[in-house]
Amino acid sequence: MSFRAPLRDISHTLLNVAGLDALLGKGAFEAVDRETVEAVLSGAAQFAQGVLAPLNRLGDIEGVKFANGKVIAAPGFADAYRKYCADGWSGLASSPDFGGQGLPRAVSLAVFEMIHAANMSFGLCPMLSEAAIHLLEVHGTERQRRLYLGKLVSGQWTGTMNLTEAQAGSDLALLRAKAERDGERYRIAGQKIFITWGDHDCAENIVHLVLARLPDAPPGVKGISLFLVPKFLVDESGKPGAPNALRPLSIEHKLGIHGSPTCVMSYEGAAGEIVGAPGDGLALMFTMMNAARLNVGMEGVGIAERAYQQALDYARTRLQGRSPWTADQPARIFDLPDVRRMLMLMAAKIEAARSICYATAVAADTAEHAEAEGVRHAAKLREEILVPIAKAWSTDVGVEIASLGVQVHGGAGFIEETGAAQHYRDARIAPIYEGTNGIQAMDLAGRKLGLANGEAMRDLLIEMRSTAIDDKTIAAPLHAAIAAAERATDWMMMNRGSADALAQATNYLKLMGDTIGGWMLAKSEMAAKGEFARGKTALARFYAAQVLLTAAALADTIETGAAALETASVFPE
Amino acid sequence: MSFRAPLRDISHTLLNVAGLDALLGKGAFEAVDRETVEAVLSGAAQFAQGVLAPLNRLGDIEGVKFANGKVIAAPGFADAYRKYCADGWSGLASSPDFGGQGLPRAVSLAVFEMIHAANMSFGLCPMLSEAAIHLLEVHGTERQRRLYLGKLVSGQWTGTMNLTEAQAGSDLALLRAKAERDGERYRIAGQKIFITWGDHDCAENIVHLVLARLPDAPPGVKGISLFLVPKFLVDESGKPGAPNALRPLSIEHKLGIHGSPTCVMSYEGAAGEIVGAPGDGLALMFTMMNAARLNVGMEGVGIAERAYQQALDYARTRLQGRSPWTADQPARIFDLPDVRRMLMLMAAKIEAARSICYATAVAADTAEHAEAEGVRHAAKLREEILVPIAKAWSTDVGVEIASLGVQVHGGAGFIEETGAAQHYRDARIAPIYEGTNGIQAMDLAGRKLGLANGEAMRDLLIEMRSTAIDDKTIAAPLHAAIAAAERATDWMMMNRGSADALAQATNYLKLMGDTIGGWMLAKSEMAAKGEFARGKTALARFYAAQVLLTAAALADTIETGAAALETASVFPE
Repeated sequence: MSFRAPLRDISHTLLNVAGLDALLGKGAFEAVDRETVEAVLSGAAQFAQGVLAPLNRLGDIEGVKFANGKVIAAPGFADAYRKYCADGWSGLASSPDFGGQGLPRAVSLAVFEMIHAANMSFGLCPMLSEAAIHLLEVHGTERQRRLYLGKLVSGQWTGTMNLTEAQAGSDLALLRAKAERDGERYRIAGQKIFITWGDHDCAENIVHLVLARLPDAPPGVKGISLFLVPKFLVDESGKPGAPNALRPLSIEHKLGIHGSPTCVMSYEGAAGEIVGAPGDGLALMFTMMNAARLNVGMEGVGIAERAYQQALDYARTRLQGRSPWTADQPARIFDLPDVRRMLMLMAAKIEAARSICYATAVAADTAEHAEAEGVRHAAKLREEILVPIAKAWSTDVGVEIASLGVQVHGGAGFIEETGAAQHYRDARIAPIYEGTNGIQAMDLAGRKLGLANGEAMRDLLIEMRSTAIDDKTIAAPLHAAIAAAERATDWMMMNRGSADALAQATNYLKLMGDTIGGWMLAKSEMAAKGEFARGKTALARFYAAQVLLTAAALADTIETGAAALETASVFPE
Repeated sequence: MSFRAPLRDISHTLLNVAGLDALLGKGAFEAVDRETVEAVLSGAAQFAQGVLAPLNRLGDIEGVKFANGKVIAAPGFADAYRKYCADGWSGLASSPDFGGQGLPRAVSLAVFEMIHAANMSFGLCPMLSEAAIHLLEVHGTERQRRLYLGKLVSGQWTGTMNLTEAQAGSDLALLRAKAERDGERYRIAGQKIFITWGDHDCAENIVHLVLARLPDAPPGVKGISLFLVPKFLVDESGKPGAPNALRPLSIEHKLGIHGSPTCVMSYEGAAGEIVGAPGDGLALMFTMMNAARLNVGMEGVGIAERAYQQALDYARTRLQGRSPWTADQPARIFDLPDVRRMLMLMAAKIEAARSICYATAVAADTAEHAEAEGVRHAAKLREEILVPIAKAWSTDVGVEIASLGVQVHGGAGFIEETGAAQHYRDARIAPIYEGTNGIQAMDLAGRKLGLANGEAMRDLLIEMRSTAIDDKTIAAPLHAAIAAAERATDWMMMNRGSADALAQATNYLKLMGDTIGGWMLAKSEMAAKGEFARGKTALARFYAAQVLLTAAALADTIETGAAALETASVFPE
């Protein structure tokens, strides 16, 4: 159950496939070159392998404790977190003005892939801090940045997102938490659930970002404001002092990620300050959303990589049956065609999902830092269209691959000590949180397809066509898949907002993920060299046969709309 | 988390779709009519709902205990088992000569569906006894039947299958357990793993059926013999006395089915008797195999049904978002198209998988009891070809649907208290045990396709075509899917035994399951009446749009063979 970061794949995908190379050595990243990127990745790999991976199983078995109203992190997690901060892994992509390293988000994301693969429960803590950092960088007042940002960037304090309430999950319009003005500040009251790393003993303070309603706020999402509520009140010098009127009520007993404390939080007139203007809460949260969703997509890739490595190791040592390819008897199950098919499917989908996530991050970096406004605009559209796909497709892949990982192990996969089962349990949360995959599909088929009158998806389809023209390996199935994606896109655009489109949104997202994944694998094999390229070519060819061939059928399904759904007879009340 | 047996669906599928009706009132089932069948089903439903379902979660949380070398069943399980026997649920399909009820296997299987749905961990105990009963009925000596069969049929004793060893799972040629002649009997020595209900405190004796090698046996599977080894030695009057030299060494800590003791068993010169002739072990085990595999397929359906009911209940009460179909705000998530799509997919696949399993059992009953030899022969071929599909396709569906069940619940699905997560964990074993689904696929693509020179599958395809001609709802997609299945079958036949066929066996099994499932749904909607028929028609139409449309693409994938697999570059050693 050791973990080896797939450094060569990561750096090839990041630099050559996702296109980070084009951003280096100029503008905001003038001082960043390939060597810097590779050094960062290599250091992160050491940390993930050496410090985080060995705690993963312990976090699963021992988990988080809740005692005397306080949360105690899983064994070793607090020390690992302090080392994480001391070694400088916090705030990689944050502004140097607040102690960050100013690296591209894409590099930070690749580092997160390794962290999630090594220990997904651990990774959630800095991941949420990153979201809080990004929010305050963009929307905090100067005072808020001065008091909170440096501590968050250094990792001395951590951050949380408090959105969900028992009756308000995917639908935040139903949110009830209250905020009332009290002199200079606000008093926050209400209960929040599913608060990841909502309390713990790894850092000296926790900065909660909480959605609540002001007394005179309109109903629905327009009445939601965002408040910064620290666990310990902070004086003007930035020192944490008295405890705030908030506390964790309990932690959840979950299917997986046992090392991550998921808290029910109670705000009982806690002192907070508003971020942005009243009523801006949801819009502000959306600035964190893209990064957080992309990061969750990356979790899907990380857990898939971990499950894949474990299955591959097992397949190489387990002896059983006969192979048509070798004379060994018994053969390694690695050499049984059906097992090889599973391993190839894992490897190919991981590469596709990794590429999609990295490409989304490179688009985000470009949108933020490119010189020309037109380039920034196009990149922003690309980021917007890719985020729901990166999140949902990659996390579905994460679950699929973790399940294949169990299957490759046979009976041993069902025994907890083997470790394959933990990945299957851990992976299952990613299609749910940060907006369920159904929400992602509706975001893609609704708002995102409509951006700039459909320009975002149109540009992507055109770019994929041009790659398919150059490709020597999978041109035919890739062209066919792109044609199916184009047909489905036209249909979704024509039916946008209708029950037909809503009913097919998940299939549409899958079709786009499948197709974009194939495009990425074509780019990968074209950019690779030598023996390494032969592996990438094999993956592309396999993916084309197993995945791209189904694209046209999926487009056919999409065109059936909601016709088959509108019946009460199946579900008599 | 209550369970309501879907009695109307079960009896419709069993009698009208799978064709049990045609066997009733004649021959071996002269005394069995529809009313009897429905009364049995209804009684079983009461038992499953009232006695077994309430123990399911307790079995998961508390699980099985191992103390002082003994296994103690989960809380309430021993009482429930005694009630199961007292109420006459044991031996439903066993011969009346030994106290059984002589009902069709298909009826017993439908009862097992409800038991598995209510409490899969519990269901495994009688399921393994059934396998032992069947084996002794067919292959036991008169003395063995006299001493053991009655007690197994009544449930007073339970049975186990001891095949797997640490180095010998799917490949029994590697088996090492030893048997030596000792006067009238044999001494068995060796260690067996993954022994389901290998020890417990629910019954007064346990009859272990153990594969082992005699000293002069040839290597490989031909040297394997089968031994009956009781936990307590039995005297000639059938009374259990002194403990035998065997014991459970430990129980496994598993991902799911925590209420089922999975034992490591140690045989330390235990006294046993041979069943059948030396060297017949594997052949004898195969007589249990069909029934056991079919039963595991049924587990897939049962757990899927349970997960589906829970998701449907949640979807009907959880309020969130807006629906294009209702004015309620917030709407029930049941009325959101993407959630409705998930629920329809669950309902349609459950119906398809249930039909496939029942049809397999009806074929087995026909093969055993039909008057005309030609009918028995054809039915045997049908049973043989359907068993691997019933097992693998239904258990994959079980995992898929349990996962959808979690997804419908959103964040709540990841919390163990909700109960959806247990189904996701429990369901995961079914694609693994009784021959992994990869093994099933190779069985189908190898031995089964070859039976009677391909007659078994050819007959099935012809029968499907004739249904498709009569169908008014999904004729076009069904014909297209059958055409794809025919094309893929021809290709698999032509390449039988090659690496190409082995590499595509899993895809082929999926294609056949998808297509046969569509055929079953067509039969179902044609056989149903009134409002009930409208629901079945809706399911068939939905399934055609979501599943059958992909058949041609899957056939295309199959025709790519192993071309994309034979490379070492993807997996540098």
